[in-house]
Amino acid sequence: MLKNDRFLRALLREPVDRTPVWIMRQAGRYLPEYREVRKQAGDFMSLCRNPELACEVTLQPLRRYNLDAAILFSDILTIPDAMGLGLYFVTGEGPKFERPLQSASDIDKLGLPDAESDLGYVMDAVRTIRGALNGGDDQLVPLIGFSGSPWTLATYMVEGAASREFSRVKGLMYEDPATMEKLLNLLADAVRDYLNAQIRAGAQAVQIFDTWGGSLSTECYRRFSLAPMQRILDGLIRENEGRRVPVIMFTKGGGAWLEAMADTGVDALGLDWTCDIANARQRVGDRVALQGNLDPTVLFADPDVIRREVRKVLDGFGKGNGHVFNLGHGIMQHVPPEHLDVLVEEVHEYSARFHV
Amino acid sequence: MLKNDRFLRALLREPVDRTPVWIMRQAGRYLPEYREVRKQAGDFMSLCRNPELACEVTLQPLRRYNLDAAILFSDILTIPDAMGLGLYFVTGEGPKFERPLQSASDIDKLGLPDAESDLGYVMDAVRTIRGALNGGDDQLVPLIGFSGSPWTLATYMVEGAASREFSRVKGLMYEDPATMEKLLNLLADAVRDYLNAQIRAGAQAVQIFDTWGGSLSTECYRRFSLAPMQRILDGLIRENEGRRVPVIMFTKGGGAWLEAMADTGVDALGLDWTCDIANARQRVGDRVALQGNLDPTVLFADPDVIRREVRKVLDGFGKGNGHVFNLGHGIMQHVPPEHLDVLVEEVHEYSARFHV
Repeated sequence: MLKNDRFLRALLREPVDRTPVWIMRQAGRYLPEYREVRKQAGDFMSLCRNPELACEVTLQPLRRYNLDAAILFSDILTIPDAMGLGLYFVTGEGPKFERPLQSASDIDKLGLPDAESDLGYVMDAVRTIRGALNGGDDQLVPLIGFSGSPWTLATYMVEGAASREFSRVKGLMYEDPATMEKLLNLLADAVRDYLNAQIRAGAQAVQIFDTWGGSLSTECYRRFSLAPMQRILDGLIRENEGRRVPVIMFTKGGGAWLEAMADTGVDALGLDWTCDIANARQRVGDRVALQGNLDPTVLFADPDVIRREVRKVLDGFGKGNGHVFNLGHGIMQHVPPEHLDVLVEEVHEYSARFHV
Repeated sequence: MLKNDRFLRALLREPVDRTPVWIMRQAGRYLPEYREVRKQAGDFMSLCRNPELACEVTLQPLRRYNLDAAILFSDILTIPDAMGLGLYFVTGEGPKFERPLQSASDIDKLGLPDAESDLGYVMDAVRTIRGALNGGDDQLVPLIGFSGSPWTLATYMVEGAASREFSRVKGLMYEDPATMEKLLNLLADAVRDYLNAQIRAGAQAVQIFDTWGGSLSTECYRRFSLAPMQRILDGLIRENEGRRVPVIMFTKGGGAWLEAMADTGVDALGLDWTCDIANARQRVGDRVALQGNLDPTVLFADPDVIRREVRKVLDGFGKGNGHVFNLGHGIMQHVPPEHLDVLVEEVHEYSARFHV
């Protein structure tokens, strides 16, 4: 049994006593204990591939903070790595691929990974974390699984690295949309299988990180990012262990498209900090829960400023069900760890008034 | 007299025979003749500071393409440079400041530049370009002046360089909003004086480039980016040489805030490519003209794709007055120059049907 199921209840717009809170990249470089384990593991992917260490860093933020959910420690690019592109990391430069996609024939050669065998290390991590969250007793908080969105995976696969301009992947998209859709459909099927395997291994909610959907025009977003995410949703396991498995869709820079995102049948939308959460609730809050959306840079400020800005987000959503507090993007590397405690405590304390 | 005043007429939502088109960064690195002059000038700021060479590169794209406006060749960061921060450029890294603002007392020490004396090289360039556009005869096309927005200037002044996270400038904004507003008000007055001097020197329309307004939350955008832009607008010369001087406001990533931007009394809004222009017109098209908004990466595609995507933007705006065609951001360095010709010709040819 779950001791604390606020997070799952809020995602289904059910009543809770406090607004639940978790933080994107809560297991990460801002924590000294994370940097210690990371050093021990060697490189980043070795840490992801080691279920015990991945479990350890997943649990670290839960020991420090009263968070309402754990999130699997992994990378958004494990699928293209399993497809043979050779994921690697250069310090300070972000993810890269040894063998990026350079032609339509490179795309033709791609196969669908088997989530259980090709990405077994991720499922092992999920099972290990679920075991550790129970601690022989009731489960502390639910575990979130995740994947990158098909468009986001495709950008890295075609560009070979993080990109500011997306000229190669958009070149393919505009020149040869049929090949682009073929790639995106394959990736959608791979993400579907991957998330379903995570759910079977014990993930109790899943989030699709559409980090680069916001780089697209409205028309291209619908066709090349949202449609493949719809394809994923249509094939996802939505109930497991006798409970709904909520799905969260997060398109960074996607504030203009919330209605279309809600139309997919997703349970919740992640909002970046540029969205006004009150306005978002008016637009889609009768259909989906909302997750977010404090500006991550607020965590550099003094505690009183953090508390003031946390309250603004909670006031923005207002009274009633369907809010999961989070940042509008991942927590930043140089944030003082004690500042996150201020945020979490303020969310729980101040939000009580909205749940009476 | 202006031979071609489509651009000025469209900004005032007056009838035109063809949709006018100009391109952000139309004088720039994608042109071999620009790279030649740039080499001759030495570094980038030496080119900006030389009125004859700045005039030459301003005119280069007009010789190649049937553009409906010229834009002053300069940089958005001339004002902080005139304030003594020491602007310099490192190849491939963008603009930097030798003496970024590191404290409230650094901000206290800043003075208002005198646009005519401290930025005389810009006014000389404007006068030289106006002279050359006339060629002893009627003026070919109107000349656009410009500046960075106060928020955008402040980000570079506090960060010292381009930033992805804006942690320092937002740190100041959240911790000490009064000092931030003091800086922004000073910058607004400097931009007002600077644009007015450009107008007196011959600029016939001006654009405020709010490159980083889209990094803000809705509340912070209104207070720290839009309010200072309002302050500029309230002090701008709006008529000169017997004609309205239209003002264009371009907040990249500002699609959610178009109504608030239109409320400032600006003549036109620049749209980035993530906005749907049909939707933007519905929201604010009865109050302001719209400029944009083709995805700049489309220019890497084949001519038939460029034509197809140009037509989509024109169809999106539809019939009637008040559209200036442009990209949704600056033209990219590696675009084949002949592709821009395809774009310009298609805008003029296809748009005739919308102006009958």
